[in-house]
Order: sequence, then C-alpha cells, then structure tokens
Amino acid sequence: MRVGVLTGGGDCPGLNAVIRGVVRKGVQEYGYEFVGYRDGWRGPLEGDTIPLGIPNVRGILPRGGTILGSSRTNPLKVENGVRRIKENLVKDEVDALIVIGGEDTLGVAAELHQAYGVRCVGVPKTIDNDLSGTDYTFGFDTAVSIATEAIDRLHTTAESHMRVLVVEVMGRHAGWIALHSGLAGGANVILIPEQRFDIDQVCTWVTSRFQATYAPIVVVAEGAMPQDGDVVLKDGSLDSFGHVRLSGIGEWLAKEIEQRTGKEARTTVLGHVQRGGTPTAFDRWLATRFGLHAIEAVRDGDFGTMVALRGTDVVRVPIGDATARLKTVDPALYAEVGVFFG
Amino acid sequence: MRVGVLTGGGDCPGLNAVIRGVVRKGVQEYGYEFVGYRDGWRGPLEGDTIPLGIPNVRGILPRGGTILGSSRTNPLKVENGVRRIKENLVKDEVDALIVIGGEDTLGVAAELHQAYGVRCVGVPKTIDNDLSGTDYTFGFDTAVSIATEAIDRLHTTAESHMRVLVVEVMGRHAGWIALHSGLAGGANVILIPEQRFDIDQVCTWVTSRFQATYAPIVVVAEGAMPQDGDVVLKDGSLDSFGHVRLSGIGEWLAKEIEQRTGKEARTTVLGHVQRGGTPTAFDRWLATRFGLHAIEAVRDGDFGTMVALRGTDVVRVPIGDATARLKTVDPALYAEVGVFFG
Amino acid sequence: MRVGVLTGGGDCPGLNAVIRGVVRKGVQEYGYEFVGYRDGWRGPLEGDTIPLGIPNVRGILPRGGTILGSSRTNPLKVENGVRRIKENLVKDEVDALIVIGGEDTLGVAAELHQAYGVRCVGVPKTIDNDLSGTDYTFGFDTAVSIATEAIDRLHTTAESHMRVLVVEVMGRHAGWIALHSGLAGGANVILIPEQRFDIDQVCTWVTSRFQATYAPIVVVAEGAMPQDGDVVLKDGSLDSFGHVRLSGIGEWLAKEIEQRTGKEARTTVLGHVQRGGTPTAFDRWLATRFGLHAIEAVRDGDFGTMVALRGTDVVRVPIGDATARLKTVDPALYAEVGVFFG
Amino acid sequence: MRVGVLTGGGDCPGLNAVIRGVVRKGVQEYGYEFVGYRDGWRGPLEGDTIPLGIPNVRGILPRGGTILGSSRTNPLKVENGVRRIKENLVKDEVDALIVIGGEDTLGVAAELHQAYGVRCVGVPKTIDNDLSGTDYTFGFDTAVSIATEAIDRLHTTAESHMRVLVVEVMGRHAGWIALHSGLAGGANVILIPEQRFDIDQVCTWVTSRFQATYAPIVVVAEGAMPQDGDVVLKDGSLDSFGHVRLSGIGEWLAKEIEQRTGKEARTTVLGHVQRGGTPTAFDRWLATRFGLHAIEAVRDGDFGTMVALRGTDVVRVPIGDATARLKTVDPALYAEVGVFFG
Repeated sequence: MRVGVLTGGGDCPGLNAVIRGVVRKGVQEYGYEFVGYRDGWRGPLEGDTIPLGIPNVRGILPRGGTILGSSRTNPLKVENGVRRIKENLVKDEVDALIVIGGEDTLGVAAELHQAYGVRCVGVPKTIDNDLSGTDYTFGFDTAVSIATEAIDRLHTTAESHMRVLVVEVMGRHAGWIALHSGLAGGANVILIPEQRFDIDQVCTWVTSRFQATYAPIVVVAEGAMPQDGDVVLKDGSLDSFGHVRLSGIGEWLAKEIEQRTGKEARTTVLGHVQRGGTPTAFDRWLATRFGLHAIEAVRDGDFGTMVALRGTDVVRVPIGDATARLKTVDPALYAEVGVFFG
Repeated sequence: MRVGVLTGGGDCPGLNAVIRGVVRKGVQEYGYEFVGYRDGWRGPLEGDTIPLGIPNVRGILPRGGTILGSSRTNPLKVENGVRRIKENLVKDEVDALIVIGGEDTLGVAAELHQAYGVRCVGVPKTIDNDLSGTDYTFGFDTAVSIATEAIDRLHTTAESHMRVLVVEVMGRHAGWIALHSGLAGGANVILIPEQRFDIDQVCTWVTSRFQATYAPIVVVAEGAMPQDGDVVLKDGSLDSFGHVRLSGIGEWLAKEIEQRTGKEARTTVLGHVQRGGTPTAFDRWLATRFGLHAIEAVRDGDFGTMVALRGTDVVRVPIGDATARLKTVDPALYAEVGVFFG
Repeated sequence: MRVGVLTGGGDCPGLNAVIRGVVRKGVQEYGYEFVGYRDGWRGPLEGDTIPLGIPNVRGILPRGGTILGSSRTNPLKVENGVRRIKENLVKDEVDALIVIGGEDTLGVAAELHQAYGVRCVGVPKTIDNDLSGTDYTFGFDTAVSIATEAIDRLHTTAESHMRVLVVEVMGRHAGWIALHSGLAGGANVILIPEQRFDIDQVCTWVTSRFQATYAPIVVVAEGAMPQDGDVVLKDGSLDSFGHVRLSGIGEWLAKEIEQRTGKEARTTVLGHVQRGGTPTAFDRWLATRFGLHAIEAVRDGDFGTMVALRGTDVVRVPIGDATARLKTVDPALYAEVGVFFG
Repeated sequence: MRVGVLTGGGDCPGLNAVIRGVVRKGVQEYGYEFVGYRDGWRGPLEGDTIPLGIPNVRGILPRGGTILGSSRTNPLKVENGVRRIKENLVKDEVDALIVIGGEDTLGVAAELHQAYGVRCVGVPKTIDNDLSGTDYTFGFDTAVSIATEAIDRLHTTAESHMRVLVVEVMGRHAGWIALHSGLAGGANVILIPEQRFDIDQVCTWVTSRFQATYAPIVVVAEGAMPQDGDVVLKDGSLDSFGHVRLSGIGEWLAKEIEQRTGKEARTTVLGHVQRGGTPTAFDRWLATRFGLHAIEAVRDGDFGTMVALRGTDVVRVPIGDATARLKTVDPALYAEVGVFFG
C-alpha cells in the first residue's frame, strides 16, 4: 500500500506532527510506503512529490509550518484537474490520500471521493477552530496561547499609562480565538464576528473600567463588525486565499474609542505571529493522534471520513460534516463570558 | 446568600481563576456575598476566614497558587470536626460551600453533604488529571506544557553528548503527565504507573534508538515500577499529604540503563516546577468556566454535585463520581503511543 | 533621610525591579524612609504621593509596568513648576530624589539639579537602548527577546507559504531593537533609522533569498526611512509623548516589495507587546543593580549623577552624559551583521 | 584558505550560532572553505570530518546543541596525539583551526599553538560563565533564564503550602548562575561555591522569612559547601568530564533545614534542562558576534588569541588569559545582593 499525504490552506502549528504520526504508524505497524505531495492539491495535480519516510519525519514534531508546503490550489477549478490528479495517483502508484486541510482543502477531498472515487481520508485543520464535527482543531490552542501571552504583556502598559489597548486577533468568521484568549488574558471587552457590537456599549465598558480600576484591554476578532453598517476597511484586495482582506477593525475601534471617550487608545495587530512556530503540547498531542487515527482509517478502508476529536476520543465522521457549516461561537457561551466585560 | 469558598490539597495552576470566576459571577449576576476560608478544610473547621469580594480577585487570573491557601486537613478525622464546621458556617452566615480540591478534599465534601446536609458544590482539581467524571482537570495542561518544554530542551543535550536522559515527571498513580508530555516532547520511551515496565525492553529501546539516530529520552512517571518487584526508593517517609514518598524511580532507572547498556545516563527530576506559576491559556479557560458553572450550581440549589468537562461543555455530576475511582490511562491509549518508542 | 522616587516616560520592563532595589537597600542598610511620587514629574509637581516601604515592593520584581505610574509631564514647562516642586519636597520632607526615566525625564532632573539645587540621582530607562553613557538600559533585553520570539514564529509561515514577512519593531531614532532581534531571529534584511535604505537593494535581497532557499523575513525599525524622500505615513498626529507618530513604515515596505518583486508580503507590527510584561532575567538583574547603586549614590551625596552599566560594573556618570546625545548604531556594527542579509 | 572548526566540552546553547557566524562570514566575505571536525578534539585526532558550508549552517541559529558533536577527548593525553592531529590537518588541507570550548578544550588549543605551531583561534564557551578574559560567555544567559523561570514558578508553591523550596542550579566552582537567577527570581537565600555557608545563618534567614511573609526559596549552586566540613554527597563517581559528581547539596540542604527549623522543605534539581534548547536572544547575539570575530582573527593571522566580550565590544585576548584562572564571583558583588536575603 502506498499512501499520498498533502497539506493545504493556511499555516497551522501541528501540521508536521500529523505527518509524523501518519508515517511512523504507517511504516512501523502496517508496512506502508508514503509519497509526499507538495503544496497542497498542486502536488497531485502536477505530480510534484517528495520522499516521505521515517527519516524525513525525524525531529519535525516541534516545528511549525509543514515540510510538504501548502497552497490554495483548487483542482476542481483547473481544466482537467480531476483527470490529471487521477493520472498522477496511478503514475505514483498511490492507493489512498491523506488530506490535511481546512474547509476548502477538505471540500475538494469530499468531492473527489464522492464523485470520482478517489480514496481520501481527511484531517481537519484550522487555526480558527471553526470546523464543524470536531471539538477542537490543532493549531488553535497555540494561537490562543500566543494571543494570551500578548494580552498578559499589554496589561502592564495599559495600567502604567492609563491607555485603552485594542488587540486584534485572528478570526474572520468565528470568534473562537478572541473568546478564548480574551477570557484567558483577562480582557475587559471581547468582540466577535458572530454578534455585531454596539460601539456605545463598548465605550460604556471602557469608561466604567477606568472608573473601577485600571485601563481596559479590548480584544477584537478581525471579522468583528459594529451594528450600524460595515466598517470600510483598508482596501478591498484579496488575500492569498481569495478572501477579502478584513484587517483594520482594530484600528478603527481604537480611533472610535478615542473620539468617544476621550481616552487614549492604541492597537496591536498580532497577525501571522499567531499561526507560526512551535505548537503547544496540547496541539502536538492532538495533531499526533489525528495522524495515528488517519492512517488507521486508511488501513480500515474507511474512506470519505475525517478524524475528529470528541471529548478525549478521536473518532471518524464524514468529511462533509466538517465542511457543511461553520462552527461559530454559541450565543450562550458568549453571554457566559460577558460577566467579565467592563 | 453568602457562599464560602475553600481550596484544598496540592498546588495547582488555575485555582485563582476558579475563585475569580465564582466571585465575579456570584456578585455581578446574583448579588451574592462571599467568604474565603483559609487553608482548605482548616478554614471552616477553625472559622478562619478572609474577605472575598471583587477587589480581592482582581489580577489573580494569571497567578499560580491560591489566594486562599491550602492544606491537607481532614475534618472527618478531627474530634467534633463536623460539628465545628457546621457551627462556623452558622456563625459566618454561610449558606453554601464551593469546595475546590482533589480526591481527599472532595471526598470530605461528599460526606458532609450526604451525611450531614452541608450544602456543597465541588470543583475538581488535580494536576495529575486522574479524577473520574471529567475529561480534564485544570493545572494538568500547565504541568504537561512545562514538562514538554523541559523535554524539548533535553533533546539537544541528548544528541550532542550521546547520553540517555531520564526525565521523572509527576504522576504517582496515573501516567497522564508522562504520557502527554512524553508524546508531545518526542520521548523515545514513556513509562507509567498503570503498567509495570520490563527493564530489558526499556534497554532494548534505548539501544535501538542509539543505532537509529541519536541518544534517547526516557520519560518516567514518579509512580512507575519495574515488573520484577518494587524498587526500594529513597526512604519510606511520608510527604505532606500523607503519601509515602515515591521519588527516586528516575535515578534508579538511569543507573540500571547505564549498567545494562553501557551508555551514560542522566536524570532530571522536574518536581514542584510542574505545579507552580502562571496557568496556560487552556487551564485559565477551563478553570474560569468551572468557577462560573459552580456558582450557577449553587444558584440552582444543585448541591452534592461537582462541575466537570465533557467535550467542550461544562456539566454537573455527583461529587461521588469523581472520587469513586481513579481515572487511569487506558491500555489501548498507551499502546497507541507505543509506536513512537524505541 | 527621606528619599522620593518617581518613574517617568514610556513603559519599560524592570521599573519595578529598580524601585524594589532602591527601597530594600535604603531601608535595610541605611534606615532611610521613602516617598513614592505618582506619575513621573506630576507627582512632585502636585504633591501626589503614595506610601513606599518594604511591604509595597514585595512581589513586584517580576511584574512589568511601574507601581508608581508614569506620565510625560514636564514641570519646566508648567508655570511655577520648579517652585511648586521645591515646595512639595519641603512639605513631604524629601531630602533627595531618585529619578527613573529616559531622555526627557532625566533632562528635567539634570536641570533641576544644576540650576535649582534639587538633589537628584538618575536611573536611565529606555526600551530603545539609545541613551548614551551606559552599555545597556533595562527593558531593552526584554523587548529584543519578545521580538526575537515573534520572528522565530514567523519563519515557519514565511517558509510554508513563500511569503515575505515584514516585522516592524520599536525604534524611532535608533535601530538597536531591530538590529539585535533581527540578528537573533535570523532575519534576512534589517533596516534601521541610522541609515536610509535603498528599496532596490532590499528587493534584491528579497529576491535572492527566494532563489537560495526560503521566503525572507525583513525586520524594520519604526523610524527607518528609504533613501529617496520620507515616506508619508499614516497621519501627522502626535502620540502621548509629543512625538509625531511614525508607525506605518512596515506596511509601506510590504506594499513596495509586493509591487517590485511580485512576491506576496505581509506585515506584523508588534507594538506595545514589546514593552509590557515580565522582564527577562537579564533586565531584572540590571534593573535591580541600578536600584542598589542609585540609593548608594544618594547615601554618598553624589547628586547630579546617574547610574550606568560599563561591562559588568555599575558606575556613576553625570546625568548630562546620558541626555547630551542619542546613542545610535555604529555603522561598523551595522556592516558587521550585513553578512547575514539576503 | 581552509579552516577547521570544532566544538569541545559540555553542551551550551549558542554553539551552532558561533559555527553559523564563522561559516557565513568566512565563505561570503573571504571566500574560505571549511571543514567540520566531529566531537571536539576527537575529530582532528582521528581525521573525522563532516562537510561544513553555507547549506549546513542554514536554520541552526535557534537550535541548541552543536551540529559538530562534542567530546572530552584530550589529544595531549593520547599517544602521538599531537602528531596525529598535525598529520590530519595536513591531509585535510586545513590551514587554521577555530576551537570553540571551555577551559579544557581551549587549554589544548593554547598548548598546540604555543608548543607546536598549530594555528588556532579560540572561542570561549562555558555555561557557568567562569572563564576569565571575557565579560560573559554565551549559554550563560540561557541557563540563568531557565533557572529564573523555574524559580518564578516555585514561588507560588512556596506561598500556597508554606514550604521551603530549595533549587539546585549548575555551578561547580563558580556561583554565577545561582547569583543571577537567584537575584532575578527573587530568592531569599543564595549559596555559592566561592563562600562556604553557615547553615545556622541559612536557617535564620529561612525562619525570619516565614515570620515576615511567605515561605522562602533557597537557590544553591551545585558546588556550594557548608563551613564545617564537606558534605558527603551521593557518590564519588566521575562524570563524563572527569570531574567528581557533586550533585546532592540541594537535598542535603533541604533535610538540614527541615530538621533545624521544623519547616517542610523540598528540592528541585534543574540539571541538564539548564544547558539545552534554544538560546536566548542575548546568547544568539553574543555567539554570532563571537563567530564573526573569530573568523576575522583567522583572516588577520592573529593566532593564539581568543575572542572575548568587553562591554559591548568583541575583542581578542591571548587564549591563555581565559584558562589561567577561574573567574569567580567577587565577594563585594555577593555582599551587594545579600540585601535581599532573609
């Protein structure tokens, strides 16, 4: 049995841990061979492979990024994309694919499996934690940890200078990183894309916080928006994943707060720092187990599924379950942490 | 309504986060008052209280330890202990208790509730993650993170000097910290209390690792034991929690490995470093939510229960569920990570 | 003897360590009393004091910020400012002042001492490390460490996505943070205010890096400027210290690089994260020793001096030495690290 | 010109940074070729080399350990050792050696240069910071940082449980790590090898600390000894560097404190964790600059010298200066930090 492995979409700490788990178990327990496809779906599309054996996965567990490279290539939108992939799989003698990626990458896997019989097992990946069907995705805990550490550091500046500090974190469509890091960092306001915010309410929290003790910290997800109309952000350009760039809400917010409350405000945009570097222990554990279970699904011939975390168990669910709808923050959970606002 | 809060047993990052969650929600949403009892069950036993309001819980979220102090006092073993507690609760006008602790501390709460009608809600706490009824306990992720970072650092020494490095981590009766940190740190051997180890097998792994690449790292839980009889450890003295001190397996192992393989071996005992200091973002999230849900249980009059994590939900279970039996590492899970040994 | 202590200017990890060192030694060895002045020069100007004894400095060593607060108040620009200060010092029975601050704060101390006989000892403070007369200032090592860790994390994103990553770090007039963090983080281009950069040369480095291996990381000090004319940055507004806001060079650079090389580029602006939070061990050591030596200078009656690091020794120099001229990066040193560019 | 490079003695974060600095500058600025000798002096003795060019030093800056390996081989004690080295240098067409190591490794370099004309340039390396002739050695700041972080974490346990915590850090003959980490971590007692301690005084400090506030932290260098006779430690065995193992003072101290004060005491032995893993930004800066200057010394034909830090400058001193005598903690400096004891 020869198994192809690819990683698609945005950077995410833990990708290498998955690859290592897949290869170690596949080779040692099942005697499989592996082929690494480069840069997501571009690899099988163009037949671009790299060797993938135990020596290639040594020492990669703590390293961020992916040794296979990544891209946003969508073979379904490429002429003869499916045929070219099938030809390359035959040429490379690849019997099954392990596809590690987010909504877009897994969506292709689901389609290739269902419509064209390509034998795929999926591993869900998103720093934003917004994939349905799994309790958590790896990379998320790392992003939350980095954002929390930044918020910890900003507290002292907020206090010493009596300034409002706005921290913009990742999360275009879901506020998980904002919610978790904001709570863990002791933020005084947390704004998420799931619920349009009332700028007057934000300013009331900011002002009351100053009266009570210190200067406040406002954590805002990049996709959060005020109630009264969308903020016109920096530009309408597309980023490398084809999404409109939404960066800028943090600065908009700082200016509004300054004007409305008369308090000085500053913005920190953490950006890519949140998605790079060594994964946390939690993410290494989760990603490794995802890898071990993905190759087990291949061995069981359980194609069209993806691995998922449920409690402390790794289970299998249909790939479609993950990509069908976005997992957003439940209003009840958002309300629960609201006790810390202001 | 006046609610007493106490923390018992060993140190654990996240205790302060629980206390803050309890008080913030209790005061702001329900208008409750709070009384802090000092040093675990010693507090209500001796009527030793400290003020506990919103000003007292400001800024404590990222701090390790507990602002309430802790002890191993067991009021059930003290003459008239129960009566004294009941008298003090009356005197302090305390209507309910939130008890944050491990097996022993919660065991007292269960007994006081069931046999004597003391209105208690429990919050499970153990760095070792070995309490039943909850997916995880706070403090565990912090301990695993610290141990993993130490293992990361030891890799370079192992490689540069071709030495076996033995890391002894916490875990007297359960191997959770060893298992998670060993996997996350890329250890080559992981030994846990749940399964007696074969020293010959350990030496085979050590030797094969040297042949394959580098020097190995062996992670051993303090409670792990070889197959052929118990190791006679340092001394039979009791530690502050009344347990026999089990430290020493790490050094025993290093000596055995040296003698049997001829390879130099060194031991690092992480000790209390694993249980102190600022909690990880994960533990702050979990501990805070435990606090929010514990006070909700008090409001609902749901006494005799304790909060617990199930997947991403915080639920309530009978306190007895947590203390009935130790949650140990499932043999199947241990076997799963065995693919990385050697 | 009663000694007043104040901290002025921007936030800087280590301020609390200085205060603790001053008070511990002053009380225990010399039997002095202390008065804390709040918010820099605003404190003695308005007679705003807080108690400052050994209990007040317990536990503050690892904490960022300053327990005394800070401000940019300049009493020399306030009507009757000097007289009001002198009156308040008399009223508070303060015999000497320890002034912890940067160029502006220390400049006031120098003037008050020289022209008005106010007995001041200075402690140099600047995150930017650009004060003359001392090898290093505390806070700088912390800022460099935080920036280096961020660069470490960005490497994996740069590699996995083949994007140019621009990191804007602090340094309006001096490139020390950019130089040290850029070197320590393995950046491929480092741009500093001391030397206007050639955007063509930057693009050549970027392109050649792509050819050699991976995507490049460009570290740019916020005050760096291209050769051909100043970049028109975001706005001309003044920040809280009265300086024109210079933020924005990072984004300008990313856009220029994208247009000129056709490679995707992203910017991270670390901002205030660099100056908050717990100090590194190096900064705690340096700040504590500065505190110990400052109170010794008071004891010796050596006013008008400030403490300074020379090699491993803490010495005294005239306050004027520090504020006379900016300590900028020597062209030879910048050339030395140039071997890593491209 | 072909230059050989070797690293000898114990592990030390920053070794790879030196190697990278040497090679990058040597190749790019001077057009030199390089030969890596494996495992310290064993390499040139046995002619065991590995390729060393720019591709080999990519990405090694943040990695602990040494890509060249290390050993304690002393060629002066090997039959025909010098002749064999000279023959191998001729065979490998090596014109000069860059020797990175501590007292022993550099001592060989000094002898080979002086007595046998082998063209050597030295780079001082010791985690213990006890080499004369340089303000600091790389690796020291990393060790201090790791020990400080551990002490930070132990504070909360000390406070919550009112226990004395003894932390044993590295430092057989010099107390630099104990002194710096003890000060930076806010320890209440610091014991160093340079000054025999009075166990009664230690217990007085411990007791007074309990009365004042919290439980104390005692930092002890592994080579510290009480006044009245040497402590008989674990065993008399030699470690891999031929020194008698001195580990054990931490545990001895904890037991003595328990018996004399009646307070519970616990020991943490940090061990090899202090010398592994990624170097701090400070150490990467220092090690890289040492590398750049070492190859410059080779270019200048300035053999028999070693690079050294003086203030912020890297200078050259005779190798003998470093190895002539140990750099120990000045009694005045130890007295200076004594204000924090108790």
